Amino acid sequence: MMPKGFVEKITDMDVDFAKWYTDVVTKAELVDYSSVRGSMIIRPYGYKIWEHIKDQLDRKIKETGHENVYMPLFIPESLLQVEKDHIEGFAPEVAWVTHGGEEKLQERLCVRPTSEVLFAEHYRNIIHSYRDLPKLYNQWANVVRWEKTTRPFLRTLEFLWQEGHTCHETEQEAIEETEKMLNVYATICEELLAIPVIRGRKTEKEKFAGATFTYTIESLMHDGKALQAATSHFLGDRFAEAFSITFLNREGREQHVQQTSWGFTTRIIGAMIMVHGDNRGLVLPPNVAPTQVMIVPIAQHKEGVLDHAYGLKERVKTVARVDIDASDKQPGWKFNESEMKGIPIRLEVGPKDMEQDQVILVRRDTGEKVLVAISEVEQKITELLVEIQKNMYKKAYTRLREKTSIVQTFEEFQSALQNENRIIKAMWCGNRECEDYIKEETGATSRCIPFEEEDISSTCVCCKKNAKHMVYWAKAY
Amino acid sequence: MMPKGFVEKITDMDVDFAKWYTDVVTKAELVDYSSVRGSMIIRPYGYKIWEHIKDQLDRKIKETGHENVYMPLFIPESLLQVEKDHIEGFAPEVAWVTHGGEEKLQERLCVRPTSEVLFAEHYRNIIHSYRDLPKLYNQWANVVRWEKTTRPFLRTLEFLWQEGHTCHETEQEAIEETEKMLNVYATICEELLAIPVIRGRKTEKEKFAGATFTYTIESLMHDGKALQAATSHFLGDRFAEAFSITFLNREGREQHVQQTSWGFTTRIIGAMIMVHGDNRGLVLPPNVAPTQVMIVPIAQHKEGVLDHAYGLKERVKTVARVDIDASDKQPGWKFNESEMKGIPIRLEVGPKDMEQDQVILVRRDTGEKVLVAISEVEQKITELLVEIQKNMYKKAYTRLREKTSIVQTFEEFQSALQNENRIIKAMWCGNRECEDYIKEETGATSRCIPFEEEDISSTCVCCKKNAKHMVYWAKAY
Repeated sequence: MMPKGFVEKITDMDVDFAKWYTDVVTKAELVDYSSVRGSMIIRPYGYKIWEHIKDQLDRKIKETGHENVYMPLFIPESLLQVEKDHIEGFAPEVAWVTHGGEEKLQERLCVRPTSEVLFAEHYRNIIHSYRDLPKLYNQWANVVRWEKTTRPFLRTLEFLWQEGHTCHETEQEAIEETEKMLNVYATICEELLAIPVIRGRKTEKEKFAGATFTYTIESLMHDGKALQAATSHFLGDRFAEAFSITFLNREGREQHVQQTSWGFTTRIIGAMIMVHGDNRGLVLPPNVAPTQVMIVPIAQHKEGVLDHAYGLKERVKTVARVDIDASDKQPGWKFNESEMKGIPIRLEVGPKDMEQDQVILVRRDTGEKVLVAISEVEQKITELLVEIQKNMYKKAYTRLREKTSIVQTFEEFQSALQNENRIIKAMWCGNRECEDYIKEETGATSRCIPFEEEDISSTCVCCKKNAKHMVYWAKAY
Repeated sequence: MMPKGFVEKITDMDVDFAKWYTDVVTKAELVDYSSVRGSMIIRPYGYKIWEHIKDQLDRKIKETGHENVYMPLFIPESLLQVEKDHIEGFAPEVAWVTHGGEEKLQERLCVRPTSEVLFAEHYRNIIHSYRDLPKLYNQWANVVRWEKTTRPFLRTLEFLWQEGHTCHETEQEAIEETEKMLNVYATICEELLAIPVIRGRKTEKEKFAGATFTYTIESLMHDGKALQAATSHFLGDRFAEAFSITFLNREGREQHVQQTSWGFTTRIIGAMIMVHGDNRGLVLPPNVAPTQVMIVPIAQHKEGVLDHAYGLKERVKTVARVDIDASDKQPGWKFNESEMKGIPIRLEVGPKDMEQDQVILVRRDTGEKVLVAISEVEQKITELLVEIQKNMYKKAYTRLREKTSIVQTFEEFQSALQNENRIIKAMWCGNRECEDYIKEETGATSRCIPFEEEDISSTCVCCKKNAKHMVYWAKAY
């Protein structure tokens, strides 16, 4: 039997990235598998990260005037069918409840894959006049999508998310809301999770089933694949028409509301792992790390060491989320564990350090060791946490730039992707045929039309007809 | 069409309590119905109350050393069947998923009615040695029970809750945990929600399916019916045996863990409504009220009134959760709305009050009006909120005492319940037959064997054989 606390080596990320990922999520104790196919157990360490993201995002959602509600888990089949594009998009991936207790149901219920139709039905009931607008609702919930192949956080049968659903008087106001919430998501990614994102619009092919258009933030993983970090949809009046959500406007006429919806999921934890992780395991940005500093006493059996370490913990507690590993494992094992769990700073202290009134701080992001005088420990840790957060963002941003290619021809497109996964900037005519062709030939999908387009060329990278847009392309999770 | 903000009269609670309840939950905008049978939409005002309860309870759960996790929504049929009593208890009331997308599943999945079996499976994976114990896990989740007749909050197809699941080395430690969490629930009821509770143990008939025993806290509604506010179960090693959850104990021998589980649900909101509400609507205890003070400006079109009211809001904000109703409705309507929503204090201020440097505070619980000098407004509100919270608890406690009857014979039992619902204290022999007979004849079920039993008589109220326990009996929700 392995000694307790022994951390087995994980797969090298350059050898097998998918295997590395699975090793990290299980060995860092973020998730466990269960006998429920495609579902995951989110363990305490993983759930603390989600709680932290949730708290921050919930605060921002409330600050921007939204209120939380809770809608039913089940959707009657007939309700899901009201908006045609929506049911077409979601029907293949919903779970159906057909029996309640011993009784067969007269109408099947689907387990919500998303809740547009439930919100629409409720909005029809409660909106009558422009005085009732805007309605800015959000819910934190679990949703189910019947996926064939699954991976913890990235693609699971069930996942946790928030879904915002809003109603507005005018198209302009709704579009502003769509943008505002995309920016909230981008801020969470960039400032909390140190993940740089590209903001843009999805093509018609890639947009949400039932939306007029979809805004997205796209991120780049360590292996050069892209990942859609979050989306925000302008629904126009499509659901409003299908569900008759009308209001008496300021001119006294009946009018349909304009709607948005937007969602942020546990998937982002997968992104964070794949952006920052390394061959020693997780690397957590300080702003989201459940434990920011792990104290490891050296030669803790010697007199005074443990007391001294606990004393330090009390001091560090005033500036950081700190924990101490006072178990009977060897220091080397404790180092490995703390690294596997991605804790930003390790604080080592032993008899020699005590004599010299110092501690050793070890950065998880760079491995750098710093000797710090005891008197400066709070200040140095405060500075280091800021520095690590910045450095992690910068590193990820540099990689994003380095892994981006600008191409003008289809040959350039193909050769850019020949040896490694990259993000490609290239012009596009706007036709679905070219989008499909590119995917077929290269495996890359259109990630987004960025809000800030560059003029790379005047012709489509695929058909050479007139270009309409610059598009980011990549293989994606 | 009704003028906006007009509050229709609600049903008199003494005429039709059930109808009164439905009126309150919808007119106070706590819930709305949807086309999903038996499920409710929790609206912003209702959800804020739940968030408040959740925040307080979550803090206490963490303070007592528990960690949050998240388990899958679905349970494979075979997994639910492992513990025999458990499946027997829950099978009649679970929803079954039989199809995923277009495909028929090889094994049905039930939508979790509770998650003992999922936790058990996980615990088997992660517990190996006494060093891994105790495991103190909790999850916040939605669960589904296929109920025939439903009522918002009280009994719904789907509800929100937290469920704690713990593993321990010894029986004693697990029993202490069971008690500890029951006390946490009792504190939430008494201190946050001003609901007095009776602590006790369920009879064998009423205990949780799969438990060794179940502790409960029971509360009394305005109509004299009881409501089980929360339960905490000692599971012993029954799930541990069924799922082979073993650990190497301190003596180096394999041993089964001892388990507990405990849950607190959105049902408590229904209890709070039925304990404190009156014929004007909700009455919210200040500690849980989303808005504690509602400012209503009088003659707000007159110069300076609104500015003055907003100024007051800034001051009150430092001591209470305060809102202002500056809409164009008449003050009388605003009063009605604020009362319907149960806001603990209404602050009225108009031109005359401004001249006299005073405001009027109106208590929701007693209707009492107090003139207060502007200079004392923060202090007076602080005091009043404490006073209201205390008074509401006291009132509920007095009712609980007044509606309790002590009976020695079956005739007394029956006559106590003849004209109104009451809680009955009576002795019991411990036999299921008497319990069933009492229910059949009187409609009252055993609520609990209180931790502090009184010696009312030496014989069972039903069969007149030797009494074993004092039991609280009542009709119940």
